[in-house]
Amino acid sequence: MTELTLTVEGMSCDHCKSAVEKALIKIEAVESASVNLEEKQVTIRYDGTKANPEQLIEVIEEEGYEVLD
Amino acid sequence: MTELTLTVEGMSCDHCKSAVEKALIKIEAVESASVNLEEKQVTIRYDGTKANPEQLIEVIEEEGYEVLD
Repeated sequence: MTELTLTVEGMSCDHCKSAVEKALIKIEAVESASVNLEEKQVTIRYDGTKANPEQLIEVIEEEGYEVLD
Repeated sequence: MTELTLTVEGMSCDHCKSAVEKALIKIEAVESASVNLEEKQVTIRYDGTKANPEQLIEVIEEEGYEVLD
């Protein structure tokens, strides 16, 4: 299992937290996704043989948030 | 038709806007509900013979937001 922590701009409330977590968990390779609103971070545990960071970032951005480098 | 504009604290994003509007529109007496995030206001058009402001305020507060006096 691979763990990735991303910094994400624009997650302002519990609805945002839920939107990002649900979008990520729908990806089959993702085991868990957890947003920390105060830290502006999302931590994702996933099967690194079945998904890559670019795919995860794309899903977050499709929800309308900006993933920082 | 009665029109009521309330000031609501805590609506931070489009998810909040949608949550408040949807909760209000589910009330049968409510014809329309429109949130202005920048102004922190929600404007509700409703049948004043079938609902009262206290009921509308309660629904907004059940969604987790504070209605200011």
